[in-house]
Amino acid sequence: MSNGDIFAGEVIGTAILILFGAGVCAAVTLNFSKAKAAGWVVIAFGWGFGVLAGAYTAAPLSGGHLNPAVTVGVAVDTGEWGKVPLYVCAQLVGAVLGAVLAWLVYYAQFRANADVRTAQPTLGVFSTGPEIRSPAANLTTEVIATAALVLPILAFGKNDGIGIGQIPGEDAGIYGSGISILLVSLLVVGIGLSLGGPTGYAINPARDLGPRIAHALLPIPNKGGSDWGYAWVPVAGPLLGGLLAGMVFNAAY
Amino acid sequence: MSNGDIFAGEVIGTAILILFGAGVCAAVTLNFSKAKAAGWVVIAFGWGFGVLAGAYTAAPLSGGHLNPAVTVGVAVDTGEWGKVPLYVCAQLVGAVLGAVLAWLVYYAQFRANADVRTAQPTLGVFSTGPEIRSPAANLTTEVIATAALVLPILAFGKNDGIGIGQIPGEDAGIYGSGISILLVSLLVVGIGLSLGGPTGYAINPARDLGPRIAHALLPIPNKGGSDWGYAWVPVAGPLLGGLLAGMVFNAAY
Amino acid sequence: MSNGDIFAGEVIGTAILILFGAGVCAAVTLNFSKAKAAGWVVIAFGWGFGVLAGAYTAAPLSGGHLNPAVTVGVAVDTGEWGKVPLYVCAQLVGAVLGAVLAWLVYYAQFRANADVRTAQPTLGVFSTGPEIRSPAANLTTEVIATAALVLPILAFGKNDGIGIGQIPGEDAGIYGSGISILLVSLLVVGIGLSLGGPTGYAINPARDLGPRIAHALLPIPNKGGSDWGYAWVPVAGPLLGGLLAGMVFNAAY
Amino acid sequence: MSNGDIFAGEVIGTAILILFGAGVCAAVTLNFSKAKAAGWVVIAFGWGFGVLAGAYTAAPLSGGHLNPAVTVGVAVDTGEWGKVPLYVCAQLVGAVLGAVLAWLVYYAQFRANADVRTAQPTLGVFSTGPEIRSPAANLTTEVIATAALVLPILAFGKNDGIGIGQIPGEDAGIYGSGISILLVSLLVVGIGLSLGGPTGYAINPARDLGPRIAHALLPIPNKGGSDWGYAWVPVAGPLLGGLLAGMVFNAAY
Repeated sequence: MSNGDIFAGEVIGTAILILFGAGVCAAVTLNFSKAKAAGWVVIAFGWGFGVLAGAYTAAPLSGGHLNPAVTVGVAVDTGEWGKVPLYVCAQLVGAVLGAVLAWLVYYAQFRANADVRTAQPTLGVFSTGPEIRSPAANLTTEVIATAALVLPILAFGKNDGIGIGQIPGEDAGIYGSGISILLVSLLVVGIGLSLGGPTGYAINPARDLGPRIAHALLPIPNKGGSDWGYAWVPVAGPLLGGLLAGMVFNAAY
Repeated sequence: MSNGDIFAGEVIGTAILILFGAGVCAAVTLNFSKAKAAGWVVIAFGWGFGVLAGAYTAAPLSGGHLNPAVTVGVAVDTGEWGKVPLYVCAQLVGAVLGAVLAWLVYYAQFRANADVRTAQPTLGVFSTGPEIRSPAANLTTEVIATAALVLPILAFGKNDGIGIGQIPGEDAGIYGSGISILLVSLLVVGIGLSLGGPTGYAINPARDLGPRIAHALLPIPNKGGSDWGYAWVPVAGPLLGGLLAGMVFNAAY
Repeated sequence: MSNGDIFAGEVIGTAILILFGAGVCAAVTLNFSKAKAAGWVVIAFGWGFGVLAGAYTAAPLSGGHLNPAVTVGVAVDTGEWGKVPLYVCAQLVGAVLGAVLAWLVYYAQFRANADVRTAQPTLGVFSTGPEIRSPAANLTTEVIATAALVLPILAFGKNDGIGIGQIPGEDAGIYGSGISILLVSLLVVGIGLSLGGPTGYAINPARDLGPRIAHALLPIPNKGGSDWGYAWVPVAGPLLGGLLAGMVFNAAY
Repeated sequence: MSNGDIFAGEVIGTAILILFGAGVCAAVTLNFSKAKAAGWVVIAFGWGFGVLAGAYTAAPLSGGHLNPAVTVGVAVDTGEWGKVPLYVCAQLVGAVLGAVLAWLVYYAQFRANADVRTAQPTLGVFSTGPEIRSPAANLTTEVIATAALVLPILAFGKNDGIGIGQIPGEDAGIYGSGISILLVSLLVVGIGLSLGGPTGYAINPARDLGPRIAHALLPIPNKGGSDWGYAWVPVAGPLLGGLLAGMVFNAAY
């Protein structure tokens, strides 16, 4: 994979992921949306199928990491750290782009937020925030939830036959082909359903930081603050979780 | 594929798609339906599994496009435009047919609409409409949502092994076989959950225009208007989105 | 496949299907169930995953039809009618057995129905019934909904590679292997979501008649009537739908 | 598979299963969770995708049983009982570990239970309990629900091509590879939806006993009792169900 392909793949794939993810948060929370108040199951499946769309689209170009925590976990496993900055940079660019696309899709809804009588805080469409603000507890939640994403991703590659068309007995690789990405997307649905309650499950530094930057920059009426005081938690927690998962994987497999 | 097979496949497949899609809108909105008010998650999965049913049924005959925006995206990719009119014509015929089938399935419910005390507007069973009427914003929503459908469809074909039984390393083609169509159907669920809030996600000119024609023609009591003033948006938006996706795909892959 | 294997497979598979299907109806409707009032999405996925469980379990023995309408559709396609009575007989036996198992699972809940102050009608756990009683309309609904099940099942077998492990280019057969049954189970979810509103989607004569017999025989307190006046609709409609689907398939493929 | 790999695989996999399963129960029931009151569909998919995550992660090391009832069913089928104690011991250790991880993820929510005005009983996050307490009926529910898990698992392995990459005609084995585990995870979703109403579907002795031990030991404010009087039912019922399924499988296949 050339550096150009990696960059393009991660930008496009992460943009699609965030378009779906920020989109579903907008769908469920904004006024004048047909999915208003459709509930947590919609949030979790929306994000999961965003992974499906983004990662299968990116996979032929870049492997479809879309997440610095995954990139770090793979690097711990393989020992190859040289392309980590390229991946992470592209993921962040893609995340900002995806948030802008989601804002365009819901442009009329955001514009309607100009009415102060019904104006809503809008950061929740873009970035995560805790139900109970407690940095140590929130960080712990993000570390464990991210490890529960990255360890299975690494282990899925050890299953014979997950990569469809694969020669039996050969390693399927970090979800390069076949049904691996489908499995990862359902895994992400599961993490959302099960582990998303306390913090809204960033489990991906780019997923949180990129849209937060977009929120700070975009001209949304009555948008409220971007809560930069919390921004380090959904960056540090997922990176630690990815590291931890890589180390557990190297020890056990 | 012969022209006759293409025509038959697209008519049958699109009819099944719209039978399920209009059906789920009827299920959730009409009085005297067991699924009344079952929510947005039901809408999104109903349409998605309609794609699964229709596209796998059509695929052996026509490849299973079922959507002029997909046909246009494929034509931009391959440069072969000769059969586009055949596909689009069949898709539109199938969409009208599917809407009539859905009306037959819910015949008793539509007949019950004759009671003026409980009569409901019925266009929402057939066609899309925006929550906030704004042609530029609505068009933007449909362009982006459709590009988020067509670009992944084109890219899915570049994944090794998505076409099950495929020889490793060969291109799986526009979802010809294997799990591709399953992935596309889940992608459509995701688009509904995430991007359907503002306009009800036509993302397919035939899906909107065909049922709108059926709505205008069918003898439904107290059916309300067919809103022809909006009808160009869910035609133009998806066609532009399909074109855009084809061009991005050609540039990046 | 020996006659003994076919009989065992269809009995076991249909029993599992009805255990899950009657189970989910009990789960959502009976008092003292944790899933009380959990909604239509739960009904539809419960039945769909019952198909998955029952058909994959039966497939190695009998092919996993579990439904006289499917058996009839296959017979129209292949022209082989000799084993149809064996299949149908086993399916009906399995359906009665499955309903008894579901009653055992919810035994304490049914026993609690002895309290006349909170007693509920119980037929809905076992068999279907229309929201608007209209034999012609209800029959039409069941014919179309069943054709929308059987035609895709027959067509799925024409897709290369649906049968995983299949040699590319060979016919996957009536869902003998691979992901076909998974697809059929999601198709059944879709039929429930989209087409189940008017009648509760029997789409299978054994699914309705078997549990209705069980309901008539089981000692359930305050169980209410078994509505034998409606019983012919969910038998005749699905059989006609299966016939119709087989004929369309033979004409078009 | 070495004993060390089996132990590591079952500990890790069962810990992931319970992290997701106890996690989703916490998500839906605890105060200050974003998924509070999100409903039964969330519970069922959360547990099902926990099976997907845990079993695919464990499979390369141990085959991914994660459940003494599955291990017993496999032993009845194969006649090999030597490693059953190793599997069961590791599953129990993993289940305790997973419950502790779920408690850490929801640490702030459990800490908030110190407020006596809003304190909730917390055992439901960890272990199952019946809606109507009746040992014979509850045991029957667990026996049938577990047999409906283990019999399909054993039968899935007889389908050609379920193990993707598998040589056609060869047995796919107890879900060693390919899509088998995906199917089992959807099967578990279905059991939850359909058969979980009366008792909360333990269907796994380790899933119930491990978290119950964790609940008894963890320092949770106002946590309420651990209901040891009921603890034998979700151990004995699933073991009997696994035995029964193994015997039916040996007789019929």
